[in-house]
Amino acid sequence: MSLIVQKFGGSSVADAKKVENVADIVTSAKKNGNDVVVVVSAQGDTTDILIEKAKEINKNPSKREMDVLLSTGEQITISLLAMAIEKRGFSVISLTGWQAGFKTKSNHTNARIIKIDTTRLKSELEMNKIVIVAGFQGIDRLFDITTLGRGGSDTSAVAIAAALHADLCQIYTDVDGVYTADPNLVKNSKKLEEISYDEMLELATLGAQVLHNRSVEMAKRYNVDLEVLSSFKNVKGTKVKERVNVEKLLIRGVTKDDYTARIALINVPDESGYAYHIFSLMGKNGINVDLIVQSYGSKSKKDISFTVPLDSMELATKILKENQERLQIEDIKVSDSVSKVSIVGAGMQMNPGVAAKFFEALYNANINIHMISTSEIKISVLIDKKDSSMAINSIHDAFFE
Amino acid sequence: MSLIVQKFGGSSVADAKKVENVADIVTSAKKNGNDVVVVVSAQGDTTDILIEKAKEINKNPSKREMDVLLSTGEQITISLLAMAIEKRGFSVISLTGWQAGFKTKSNHTNARIIKIDTTRLKSELEMNKIVIVAGFQGIDRLFDITTLGRGGSDTSAVAIAAALHADLCQIYTDVDGVYTADPNLVKNSKKLEEISYDEMLELATLGAQVLHNRSVEMAKRYNVDLEVLSSFKNVKGTKVKERVNVEKLLIRGVTKDDYTARIALINVPDESGYAYHIFSLMGKNGINVDLIVQSYGSKSKKDISFTVPLDSMELATKILKENQERLQIEDIKVSDSVSKVSIVGAGMQMNPGVAAKFFEALYNANINIHMISTSEIKISVLIDKKDSSMAINSIHDAFFE
Repeated sequence: MSLIVQKFGGSSVADAKKVENVADIVTSAKKNGNDVVVVVSAQGDTTDILIEKAKEINKNPSKREMDVLLSTGEQITISLLAMAIEKRGFSVISLTGWQAGFKTKSNHTNARIIKIDTTRLKSELEMNKIVIVAGFQGIDRLFDITTLGRGGSDTSAVAIAAALHADLCQIYTDVDGVYTADPNLVKNSKKLEEISYDEMLELATLGAQVLHNRSVEMAKRYNVDLEVLSSFKNVKGTKVKERVNVEKLLIRGVTKDDYTARIALINVPDESGYAYHIFSLMGKNGINVDLIVQSYGSKSKKDISFTVPLDSMELATKILKENQERLQIEDIKVSDSVSKVSIVGAGMQMNPGVAAKFFEALYNANINIHMISTSEIKISVLIDKKDSSMAINSIHDAFFE
Repeated sequence: MSLIVQKFGGSSVADAKKVENVADIVTSAKKNGNDVVVVVSAQGDTTDILIEKAKEINKNPSKREMDVLLSTGEQITISLLAMAIEKRGFSVISLTGWQAGFKTKSNHTNARIIKIDTTRLKSELEMNKIVIVAGFQGIDRLFDITTLGRGGSDTSAVAIAAALHADLCQIYTDVDGVYTADPNLVKNSKKLEEISYDEMLELATLGAQVLHNRSVEMAKRYNVDLEVLSSFKNVKGTKVKERVNVEKLLIRGVTKDDYTARIALINVPDESGYAYHIFSLMGKNGINVDLIVQSYGSKSKKDISFTVPLDSMELATKILKENQERLQIEDIKVSDSVSKVSIVGAGMQMNPGVAAKFFEALYNANINIHMISTSEIKISVLIDKKDSSMAINSIHDAFFE
């Protein structure tokens, strides 16, 4: 007898028929002798509709009241799913975030989980009930409703799995696993049987929108075995865990991120602490800096290039121009016609041939590289956006065909 | 400085514009130096839409899960109203039923309030905030969400007014007060300045759908001054309180109820306890019996007639037929083409002329009376449904013109 936590996202519960489908998956796990806790998101576009309702009344509502409003979305789903499971003759109970014991910090719309008081969850499981929990939400120490921000329901599921020492946390979504590349872009992309937490984190950061980083980080910290699988196809998914067999594949995946912009600072002083000034300025303004490349300094001058998310490009440029004189920047060059292409895989650490193969694939496709950044388990390059599709296909062929 | 509880029903908060209107009414009361607690219902047809969603999945969902589902309706309204009030620069906080301290029994979908723990309400008022409370809902001792059933938000408002010893409980609705007759039926009907709890209770029972009986009963028990007024017209409403000036008007109102059926049991035994057998049979089957008339017994036989709500007519008939032989009923006659017309007024106790005037009005209109029933503050007659509109106009003219 195992304890399984299953999480279903908004697209998996979007309408009555899909809720019934989820009820089938859940009761099937129960019939197979498992204890089951289910975490659900708001249905389909419910959250967007609620945000719309708020904006109609107040363009800038308080975050506390937004949380009161948005938390109703998951509350609707838990009751509907419980009703669908009741109809199948199973004993079931729905719990809101606060009923399920989610205690969070008070930073509304982006609250961190402090702990889960599992008293109620455990007592309902002991009564042999399927327990349905509203994801994405909790309460703070004032008993005010909070929400967890983007990817909150994934995080809720992993947190419950950790708190209850579940045997497995299944993340049901609209894709059936983690692929070696986006199947929409690379037709030969293959589903991975398994992937390590670190590889998954790199892939998530790089734009593979399967799992949110917060949930993967939490799974890694508490060693929760994850499985990503489809709500709509009854096939094996991808396991995410601490150790995977690195022998089998050198790399796990190829990704591209078109949502990036490059900023180059030309001829800046080659002084210690200079980079710190630049990047603390960005950080203070809430701008996430990604790839950073600094040219080898000569004649007391150097160039610094870095990438920022596309929607931070204008703000970053404005701030740099305001400080151009003070920071002695000769010229600022900005481009949004760039794309970041990466490969991820724990296997590459022990295989020096990986980098060579990667650059060879780009060379063969005649693609020019603007920036290069590497970590232990990934290599990223910045290239022209127009080349990005060709690049990932060429790289994917090199490693997987 | 007074403490006012204001309650706004679903039609008063049906869309963004109406929520803004309510925000204006609430902030105006606050500007006038009052502490304000606001109780709201779900927007417009939200509750119906949620019920529809449930029925699509399970025709017979558990009441517990219905409560989880339906309670989201008011939670959406409280956050939206709070946002509208924030925009007007006032300090405001929304509270769900459980946050506002509503402790109820566990009878889901029709829970009774046990008590209100006012700690949080008081502390928010002390911080000079406008407090918005979700009506219709609470939690039971297991911390499960409950709802209060029909008229629940009125009851929530009166309960808060009682618990906080408020100076006034204003029930805002889509009519601007209690009228001497339904203005849609009687064109000369007049708005009452005031009415007693008992008169209001009789009027509510008789079909004037302004306030729900449970809330009026609670107001009477805790001596909460009520005012019924319009969300859409800025005019004085009708006060509902313990003592009113009975001199001014003999009667308060004329009502009709078309939603009734008459059942006549012909030639039944004239024995003691016979009526008890009939009406306990009805009661056991959940049928509410209203007017009861028993003919003067002769030759050891008598007739018993009574009215039941229209939707209980078939069930009542079926049960009586099943027991016809055992109960020695010679014949059962049923009619749904009847209507109950009533006058209500504490003044009639001291004025013997009231009944005479009432019957004279019916006589002048040439209306035949099937049954008569009287209490200290009302007189009801059962007449043919086709005559009911003429009857209330004729009676209204006799008393108010």
